[in-house]
Amino acid sequence: MTTKGNKTRDSILKTTRELYVKKGFQNTSISEVISATGVKKGNLYYHFESKEALGLAVLIDAKTEFLELIPRSFKGKTPIQKIKNSIKTIFEMMEKTNFVGGCLFGNTALEMSDNNPRFSCIIKEVFTNWWGLIEEQLIEAQMLGFLDKTLSTTKIAKLIIASIEGGIMLSRVSKNKNDFEDCMEALEIYLVSYQ
Amino acid sequence: MTTKGNKTRDSILKTTRELYVKKGFQNTSISEVISATGVKKGNLYYHFESKEALGLAVLIDAKTEFLELIPRSFKGKTPIQKIKNSIKTIFEMMEKTNFVGGCLFGNTALEMSDNNPRFSCIIKEVFTNWWGLIEEQLIEAQMLGFLDKTLSTTKIAKLIIASIEGGIMLSRVSKNKNDFEDCMEALEIYLVSYQ
Repeated sequence: MTTKGNKTRDSILKTTRELYVKKGFQNTSISEVISATGVKKGNLYYHFESKEALGLAVLIDAKTEFLELIPRSFKGKTPIQKIKNSIKTIFEMMEKTNFVGGCLFGNTALEMSDNNPRFSCIIKEVFTNWWGLIEEQLIEAQMLGFLDKTLSTTKIAKLIIASIEGGIMLSRVSKNKNDFEDCMEALEIYLVSYQ
Repeated sequence: MTTKGNKTRDSILKTTRELYVKKGFQNTSISEVISATGVKKGNLYYHFESKEALGLAVLIDAKTEFLELIPRSFKGKTPIQKIKNSIKTIFEMMEKTNFVGGCLFGNTALEMSDNNPRFSCIIKEVFTNWWGLIEEQLIEAQMLGFLDKTLSTTKIAKLIIASIEGGIMLSRVSKNKNDFEDCMEALEIYLVSYQ
């Protein structure tokens, strides 16, 4: 594909992602995508052969970006600090929009996971990779003596992801960032109490 | 309203709730409600003047039922055991359907909380009342010496709700009950470790 073609494709993906975050996949029509992106119908179908193909491509693009972001967000001296800063990065992303939209993966998980295995397969990969990255930090924390070695790093990693997604949900409903912050503070006590 | 009228209204609410759990509010049409409930259009509109009125009534009905269920689910000798058994009750409800559908409140939270303040107001009440009930148990746990008195019961209650909702999300995506179970086991360690 030409550079121009790649740019068009990427621009369609990013604009459509915004629509999905606002309205969900099913409620976003192809005509809305055309209107928001400004591309012609023929050009859109040249890049994505169907609404489903576009939806999957948007998710894969967001997944790649997110799984590149997470390792970069692990800033700090200790593994526990790294996890805390990673959560802070996600919090700041959500705070920017005052929790409107929320998490694309969480939204799509609830919207699509019973209807379309192709969508849920990508979301599953996001969650599995994400907790894998967190678990690496937890394992390092155990090796360095920052976390009790008898605890299951897999289970704690899953709890971290679940409480981030659930915390975003609470703050989306209340439009009050404190709900997510409160959850994360309670989680932090858990993480640091085993040092 | 007559007893028959009440029965019809309740039957519409319960059947429509099932449709919402499966498909969400926006993707459930009035004609699907008519087809699933078997009531005539005129009768449906006699009970609920619009699609929104029906949606709100379904949520209020589910909210009342859920907030009556939670106190009953607090079984056990200690407040921490009561919370654990309450989570178990929710887990068993989700397990019955193999995590298809998930949590009506969580789904509606993500689908509607940016579009319709009437919907999000009801969901907010569910979450606030739910964590209030859990917080009462946590306060009792502190009074009885089962939980460290320096911990914030509000924050822990929010973390419990968030991780239940997030845990249901993980299991809905993977269609594997272990994800939710793992989250809850990690959470349990948190609760019992402060005894």
